[in-house]
Amino acid sequence: MPSNEQRPLAVLERKVLAKNDQVAAQNRQFFRENDVVALNLMSAPGSGKTRLLEATLGRLGDRTPLAVLEGDVETANDAERVARTGVPVVQLVTSGACHLEASLVREGLDRLPVPRGGLLFIENVGNLVCPASFDLGETHRIVCVSVTEGDDKPEKYPAMFRKALAMVLTKMDLLPHVDFEVDKAVAQARALNPGVQVFLTSAVTGEGLDAWCDFLLGLNRTGDDAGP
Amino acid sequence: MPSNEQRPLAVLERKVLAKNDQVAAQNRQFFRENDVVALNLMSAPGSGKTRLLEATLGRLGDRTPLAVLEGDVETANDAERVARTGVPVVQLVTSGACHLEASLVREGLDRLPVPRGGLLFIENVGNLVCPASFDLGETHRIVCVSVTEGDDKPEKYPAMFRKALAMVLTKMDLLPHVDFEVDKAVAQARALNPGVQVFLTSAVTGEGLDAWCDFLLGLNRTGDDAGP
Repeated sequence: MPSNEQRPLAVLERKVLAKNDQVAAQNRQFFRENDVVALNLMSAPGSGKTRLLEATLGRLGDRTPLAVLEGDVETANDAERVARTGVPVVQLVTSGACHLEASLVREGLDRLPVPRGGLLFIENVGNLVCPASFDLGETHRIVCVSVTEGDDKPEKYPAMFRKALAMVLTKMDLLPHVDFEVDKAVAQARALNPGVQVFLTSAVTGEGLDAWCDFLLGLNRTGDDAGP
Repeated sequence: MPSNEQRPLAVLERKVLAKNDQVAAQNRQFFRENDVVALNLMSAPGSGKTRLLEATLGRLGDRTPLAVLEGDVETANDAERVARTGVPVVQLVTSGACHLEASLVREGLDRLPVPRGGLLFIENVGNLVCPASFDLGETHRIVCVSVTEGDDKPEKYPAMFRKALAMVLTKMDLLPHVDFEVDKAVAQARALNPGVQVFLTSAVTGEGLDAWCDFLLGLNRTGDDAGP
């Protein structure tokens, strides 16, 4: 139950969100004009988004044009990791802010070769709450959950799952060591979002990565089937 | 680099934070008057805060008065888990907000027996960013990091670690299966916060829980040694 103290913040958030939505619409138009599928990757901290991305970029190789925007509160560690794959990457540092905004994505796009006819991965700040409220203009949203986090995450953080095109379960190699029911997590996600696609993956063993990469290569470039 | 669009939000956040700080000061006064050590437990989603809490409450048993406030975006699942230990608990549901605020803690206190001379655990929303900005009036802050999240978390989410009295590494039973250097995580935390206490724990094997519980029982009730 939000307290009274939250009301003024909510009013201002609406203004910020309206301005964000304008820039997001420009980004979305830019992606359509350039035939780019832009994917907003979201998860809790430490869910393995960057590891998944490294493995994905390695497998996609030269099968399609690729580029990456890396969002973090601090440090450029993740962009350095991605750069080693040879894919063009720009680090977006929010300097304390808990989510990416459309304007920062637009600034990043100015510094990145446009992956025409291909895929742009936008790795959001590690946070299962706030990024859900900020449209970046992405074609699709993807949410990652590691099996070490527990199978209750969709129910506890519903906003993040309602608009996701796909839920990627990561770190499946650790499943034997943790108390995580895949069926339970999938049922919770589908209760919020019946059409959500599910991938069971491990960047360590390679499990599920072929199916995940085939899915990425077949995505609808207009996002009309599952836009935010 | 925050965008221009973020400036109005920052202005309003200052007002919200000022109001929050007033209520937090009242909470802190309440804790001192009632000889309560209030601990603000913070971490990413799925780091094992609730599991640690269950194990801790079981071990502390009747050695000291205990009470719990459970913060979540949605669901009362965690309060139900804690209630099974027999310790009084109130669920605080933020209904979408990404952090607890002092006013919601105050409302929770009205519904909870005061653990005079003992410990109040306040489990914050799973989020490594936003809760760091909101003083709840707690005596001490504790940050949990599971070894499955990666050893780069202090550096990537510095605000959360700067004011913590202790960093609790959780899920140590999974250490053999993951790429996590304990010394690296500890060094990063100490670079931000030289006096931070470190505990290496597993709620599955019981590793480190005796030392953690002894530490809790010995905490300074005034918080003068490490207040926020």
